[in-house]
Amino acid sequence: MSQIPVAVLGATGSVGQRFVSLLDAHPWFKVAALTGSDRSVGKPYAQACRWVLTDPMPEWAREMVIAPSSPEALEARIVFSALPSDEAKEVEPVFARAGMAVCSNASAYRREADVPLLLPEVNADHVGLVRQQRRERGWSGCILTNPNCTSTGLTVALKALQDAFGLKRAFVVSLQALSGAGYPGVPSLDIIDNVIPNIGGEEEKVEWEPRKMLGSLGAEGVALAEIRLSAHTNRVAVTDGHVVVASVELGVEVSPEEAAAAMAAYQAPPSARELPSSPRPVIRVRGEADRPQPRLDRMTGNGMTTVVGRVRPDPLLHLKFVTLSHNTIRGAAGGSIYNAELLVNEGLL
Amino acid sequence: MSQIPVAVLGATGSVGQRFVSLLDAHPWFKVAALTGSDRSVGKPYAQACRWVLTDPMPEWAREMVIAPSSPEALEARIVFSALPSDEAKEVEPVFARAGMAVCSNASAYRREADVPLLLPEVNADHVGLVRQQRRERGWSGCILTNPNCTSTGLTVALKALQDAFGLKRAFVVSLQALSGAGYPGVPSLDIIDNVIPNIGGEEEKVEWEPRKMLGSLGAEGVALAEIRLSAHTNRVAVTDGHVVVASVELGVEVSPEEAAAAMAAYQAPPSARELPSSPRPVIRVRGEADRPQPRLDRMTGNGMTTVVGRVRPDPLLHLKFVTLSHNTIRGAAGGSIYNAELLVNEGLL
Amino acid sequence: MSQIPVAVLGATGSVGQRFVSLLDAHPWFKVAALTGSDRSVGKPYAQACRWVLTDPMPEWAREMVIAPSSPEALEARIVFSALPSDEAKEVEPVFARAGMAVCSNASAYRREADVPLLLPEVNADHVGLVRQQRRERGWSGCILTNPNCTSTGLTVALKALQDAFGLKRAFVVSLQALSGAGYPGVPSLDIIDNVIPNIGGEEEKVEWEPRKMLGSLGAEGVALAEIRLSAHTNRVAVTDGHVVVASVELGVEVSPEEAAAAMAAYQAPPSARELPSSPRPVIRVRGEADRPQPRLDRMTGNGMTTVVGRVRPDPLLHLKFVTLSHNTIRGAAGGSIYNAELLVNEGLL
Amino acid sequence: MSQIPVAVLGATGSVGQRFVSLLDAHPWFKVAALTGSDRSVGKPYAQACRWVLTDPMPEWAREMVIAPSSPEALEARIVFSALPSDEAKEVEPVFARAGMAVCSNASAYRREADVPLLLPEVNADHVGLVRQQRRERGWSGCILTNPNCTSTGLTVALKALQDAFGLKRAFVVSLQALSGAGYPGVPSLDIIDNVIPNIGGEEEKVEWEPRKMLGSLGAEGVALAEIRLSAHTNRVAVTDGHVVVASVELGVEVSPEEAAAAMAAYQAPPSARELPSSPRPVIRVRGEADRPQPRLDRMTGNGMTTVVGRVRPDPLLHLKFVTLSHNTIRGAAGGSIYNAELLVNEGLL
Repeated sequence: MSQIPVAVLGATGSVGQRFVSLLDAHPWFKVAALTGSDRSVGKPYAQACRWVLTDPMPEWAREMVIAPSSPEALEARIVFSALPSDEAKEVEPVFARAGMAVCSNASAYRREADVPLLLPEVNADHVGLVRQQRRERGWSGCILTNPNCTSTGLTVALKALQDAFGLKRAFVVSLQALSGAGYPGVPSLDIIDNVIPNIGGEEEKVEWEPRKMLGSLGAEGVALAEIRLSAHTNRVAVTDGHVVVASVELGVEVSPEEAAAAMAAYQAPPSARELPSSPRPVIRVRGEADRPQPRLDRMTGNGMTTVVGRVRPDPLLHLKFVTLSHNTIRGAAGGSIYNAELLVNEGLL
Repeated sequence: MSQIPVAVLGATGSVGQRFVSLLDAHPWFKVAALTGSDRSVGKPYAQACRWVLTDPMPEWAREMVIAPSSPEALEARIVFSALPSDEAKEVEPVFARAGMAVCSNASAYRREADVPLLLPEVNADHVGLVRQQRRERGWSGCILTNPNCTSTGLTVALKALQDAFGLKRAFVVSLQALSGAGYPGVPSLDIIDNVIPNIGGEEEKVEWEPRKMLGSLGAEGVALAEIRLSAHTNRVAVTDGHVVVASVELGVEVSPEEAAAAMAAYQAPPSARELPSSPRPVIRVRGEADRPQPRLDRMTGNGMTTVVGRVRPDPLLHLKFVTLSHNTIRGAAGGSIYNAELLVNEGLL
Repeated sequence: MSQIPVAVLGATGSVGQRFVSLLDAHPWFKVAALTGSDRSVGKPYAQACRWVLTDPMPEWAREMVIAPSSPEALEARIVFSALPSDEAKEVEPVFARAGMAVCSNASAYRREADVPLLLPEVNADHVGLVRQQRRERGWSGCILTNPNCTSTGLTVALKALQDAFGLKRAFVVSLQALSGAGYPGVPSLDIIDNVIPNIGGEEEKVEWEPRKMLGSLGAEGVALAEIRLSAHTNRVAVTDGHVVVASVELGVEVSPEEAAAAMAAYQAPPSARELPSSPRPVIRVRGEADRPQPRLDRMTGNGMTTVVGRVRPDPLLHLKFVTLSHNTIRGAAGGSIYNAELLVNEGLL
Repeated sequence: MSQIPVAVLGATGSVGQRFVSLLDAHPWFKVAALTGSDRSVGKPYAQACRWVLTDPMPEWAREMVIAPSSPEALEARIVFSALPSDEAKEVEPVFARAGMAVCSNASAYRREADVPLLLPEVNADHVGLVRQQRRERGWSGCILTNPNCTSTGLTVALKALQDAFGLKRAFVVSLQALSGAGYPGVPSLDIIDNVIPNIGGEEEKVEWEPRKMLGSLGAEGVALAEIRLSAHTNRVAVTDGHVVVASVELGVEVSPEEAAAAMAAYQAPPSARELPSSPRPVIRVRGEADRPQPRLDRMTGNGMTTVVGRVRPDPLLHLKFVTLSHNTIRGAAGGSIYNAELLVNEGLL
């Protein structure tokens, strides 16, 4: 098929850069525009942006001139939003109203009842909410969101357990990478030889977002899953890759081996299984005593796979385990792109 | 009073070095001997030991000649043991039989029914177990132990809550410093830009040791506290200072403010309150949103104080909070010295 | 004597904080005022400032209300300036005109012919320039400056060699700490698992400043020393402590042992030898193969001593060696305070 | 052509692992054997080896059983040696005598007059030394070596300058990665928040090896280049990628622009230009003020390219610049493989 023109909103920041990198040579999408703040508008991307990824900036992006973040300024059918949440709140509906599909990494609309909060390998059917969204809001475009980067890997692992055994409660603690805070983000003096035992607003997201994604879509919208979560979130001196340790209570008691097998066997819903960004596999279960580790395992499945390890009994609930997910690929830009692919595949663009 | 001669067993390792540093200018104790492995015996300490602390090696230690770890080789009334656990198992009873009080940082005897597992600010009365120990084993000396470095700060915080409100369950996750693994310990390639989500044998210790220390001493010895714990332990790129995040279920429901106040007000038992190494305060409660942090807070109270922060409601149990404790001071060498001070103060030497 | 009232300009930044910390319990000086930007003025210091030092904020500073950086706003005889260079350029002369002695850490006036660029243990006599400065500028106060933090330790070591053997050329490469860039300073994503091989404007300073300090003061002012320097400056993942490696050509050929002995024996000029902040010793020469190291050696002499190691032959020039100096103590706040002490001691206040 | 069977000696270490990874899917070579220490012999590779690379272990390697390091134990025409130097000294000649070409990363034979010290993009013609070696030693196989990882990138850059302008002296300082010390290598406590200003034996190698590679091969063997070098070597907290800053005196004075252009235009000798591992380009010259950086630039040209930046005037010699080279790819395993490719291409196998 001919390629679909897309734009990246907020393309100069660290997540924006990841969009640019992942969209390089994408089989379906072609970047038609990059937007940035007033300070950047009119400059070539290579000049407006302090590139922080280890993969080099794609050549086609270097000379692309930064546009303002408004629908008139660009021709695209899909816009990927790497905007900060407050700006996203204002700007994303403008694009949706103008007929574009906004695949957003921002938190602004995640809690809206008619906005899908989407991990295609978990709740691909929730993409159907865009029909209701268009109807109710009178938009020809739409907004769909991906969850917080810490919710992401955790929810994938919980989904596999929920499907196989039911799921009641989870106690989760994150050890999060620096890239999750954007650029310049965390000052080096705050994190060398240190841990920061808090990330503003993160715990509320991690305690709520999985419930929407693990909930069921009915005529009334999504019914939140009856799961209770407690989260502690921490920043550690890691560039990329969020570790989340979890203790869970399931619907039935199972052995660690059964749980590990269920996670390893978990498959995305059929509509999300063969897309360009589909994680292969969805979950990689490792058997070593000390894995997953961010530096060694974050690029599993091109950074789209959720890696799980140390599945073992928990003395209070049923099971303990460790998850790892690449926070700026699966947990941000790669996730939004995967969402867009699902939207296209479902004929909802 | 005239100073009590003491020895440090395993003085060249990282915990041994911390003993040497903390015993410098101690008001009660005077180092009479340092022991080391066969490879070190006969060498001056400055030559046998690769010093890794930021405080300089005390001058008196530099020329002290390393002795073998046997009672005949040294004159001391107290020996501080920084031996590895398997060696401690063999060697410590030999010293106890020879009439010396062994204050051990090793795990070898922590679970013995007649051996105190001691944090003086928590369970000073357990020191009385040494009478039973001497009677039963026919030793003129004794062994007393301090807990694992991760159990330490956690147990101090739990004790304050237990006393004030009762304590039923705790879910705890550690972010542990590198010095806890000794020297050379963790290879740098394993931890730069990384997290290791496991520390061998640590979770079992953290799930059991607090129960002994929070238990009550009766005629039959220590009755383990009826508390259930679940622990995940992780290694992070921090030199010193273990962070433990905890969610707890108390005996009664209390507000975070009440819990914080109880922790801030907690006092050591009278016999442990005015010793040279007594933490001042026992617990420091910080009100900032992002504290305690290892780099900024580990030296609170000369590294003997447990620092607590972020006391807040937990959606599953009652409360969440963060603890920090210096793992080689309060959690190792400083703890053993504090134990020895208690022993002396109680007239049990 | 009664204490001299002093102020700290730009007290909320990282160097400003170091001033506050070092002035705590200073025997001669008492902090009468702390100034900050418009955003901070009127707030208590504890609230206006994100404290990044490991030593706790002094109690007396917590409630001190931030004043604006103007002479009318404060009563002080000495003001320590931790202002950014452009602001220092405007503000410092205002204070000097108002009769205060400005001891500045900023680079703005270092190159002025009548402004001392001062390391008391190196060129204490240059403080006499303030007489000329007052005469020419008609100020009742004065400005004196300390050099760039990378020039500092290097110049101390070079001075010892220059005095003993003469000095012709030096090739120097720095590995600089993060605190030299202030706070928030270097983003963590830029330095974890990385080196930044440039620090803007630093090389020019390191190639010029030592020549002024090693120059001789005559009737015409300071004649720059006839020394040629080449510098490469790099940022590494270290919190505090600048390492500079150097290769030098001396006036005469000497053995590494002679050079090391000359550095170890070097003494400050008499007027700078017994001040409260005098480094004790001025230079500590270490004999180990792998020292000095920032983490282990930066606090030598309370952070005021220059540490030198690895003195050995150089195949191109005469000698190679390594220097280490604490960049925010000797190289910044501590240096300015030492300068102020010299000024007082010389009766020039 | 059919693939040439090769073996990796010392395959379980960090350089050995890099060989295994780089030989995966190599167009000319097929791994027939992996050797290890007595402790590993007989075990499957996946079990014998603690894999520390971020690329996953190739599937074919997992079940390969570790052989002892002796020629009888394996069938191969080329053996890649990742042995420690003392073991290499004993073992490599045994393989050469047995008819195999030993491409060694060890330092044991680098200084032998009849052993090529080889960077194909620099001195491809030196491979001809193997004829003399075979003749003199009566070997049917041969030994060829690649230089120390710190010499590597530096020598490539110096070669481009030598060819274009002549080269007289160089002053060089390294900031070296941890992987250069192998695994477990540098303890984390030695390098977090620290720099180690020495690497045993490294400076001698860096001051000598470039002279052999930049020398000319005549009837009498290699005449060392008339270049004088001074080196300081340092370890920093970087996983991979050695930075070397250099100041050089050329044969003629040139502008930084001319020098940068010469380096960017430099081409490998024709015989080394189109091999599977040939760096493309040989040198990448970057124009930014703060590049190259290890984390961002080490994988340039799949880790085989030498990256140069900050070419600028030097106040003492002619020019200053910064080089970066991936120490375990171009500077170790990748270099040995490139050497083997040259040997095959020259018909010398």
